[in-house]
Amino acid sequence: MFIDLKLTDMVHEILKGKIREGDTVVDATVGNGNDTLFLARAVGKTGKVIGFDIQKKALHQTQNKLIQEALADRVLLIHDSHSNMDQYIKEPIHGAMFNLGYLPQGDKNIITKADTTIEALKKVCSLLLTGAFITIISYWGHQGGLEEKEAVEDFLTKLEAKKYICAKFNYLNREGCPPIIYFLQRL
Amino acid sequence: MFIDLKLTDMVHEILKGKIREGDTVVDATVGNGNDTLFLARAVGKTGKVIGFDIQKKALHQTQNKLIQEALADRVLLIHDSHSNMDQYIKEPIHGAMFNLGYLPQGDKNIITKADTTIEALKKVCSLLLTGAFITIISYWGHQGGLEEKEAVEDFLTKLEAKKYICAKFNYLNREGCPPIIYFLQRL
Repeated sequence: MFIDLKLTDMVHEILKGKIREGDTVVDATVGNGNDTLFLARAVGKTGKVIGFDIQKKALHQTQNKLIQEALADRVLLIHDSHSNMDQYIKEPIHGAMFNLGYLPQGDKNIITKADTTIEALKKVCSLLLTGAFITIISYWGHQGGLEEKEAVEDFLTKLEAKKYICAKFNYLNREGCPPIIYFLQRL
Repeated sequence: MFIDLKLTDMVHEILKGKIREGDTVVDATVGNGNDTLFLARAVGKTGKVIGFDIQKKALHQTQNKLIQEALADRVLLIHDSHSNMDQYIKEPIHGAMFNLGYLPQGDKNIITKADTTIEALKKVCSLLLTGAFITIISYWGHQGGLEEKEAVEDFLTKLEAKKYICAKFNYLNREGCPPIIYFLQRL
């Protein structure tokens, strides 16, 4: 693995060694389902993936992919905002993945937004087991993206260092608005 | 692997999948020899590691460690500044590692400095094969450290995006001057 990978693949490479069979993990932004499928494979038959999306189309397509790959048994897809995840998740979790922006090949007017993203992050943080992770890929070139990115970075920067490690991976010499990865680990 | 690792270990984890047997690599700052030993193992019997340090003590200690681990056959240690590496390296290389700052448990007045570090980076860049890497861990809490860090970041930010990918990994919620990793890949 090195930095010529797509960021989504880079995050998968990093998490491969981190997620274990039997883990309970959250895909906070199901979207095209790539992370959901990755998580479903990583947690194995005894694990659990809980996925959220506000777009039915995204959930429907992902459910079909899960069935095709015989992974649907361990995945619960919820048609609601990740900012309501506390209504559905009552158990501690081993990690969560976020992809912020809009659904690729979807309606570019339907985007994740600063306030609900921060709400979701706060709720995820309260669910994390010791050692658990959050990864956030932030696509921020669209309208509202910069505001969301700044809110996320501000939120992570202010988290208590005794409880959380927060870090950022960003490109230095790319034009435009290259995506960013944020990492969090619960200590 | 996740972000609770020491940065030196994190870089080793990342490079493990990148360096291959038979590769030629450079340890631009031998120091305590940890990277030299890591590189010597990674390139195998058919590979080559070229290490630089301006402190004889660092080279001497590292040579002893290499002999103990039966790795000395593939390592050339050079007592000179990495900014003169073009005098010693005439072949293209697969990668280079830098640790910027001072030698741990050594003389804290002997530090890497902005001008020679940038000179070394320029020379390394001209030696890199397609796909080759540079990793730089920047410790910058000491006097002159900030200046060096800014010079490195400025250098990487201005590199041509068609030829190089440059990226940065930094902590968000740690006080003081937490170390930073810079990554470069030759396209």
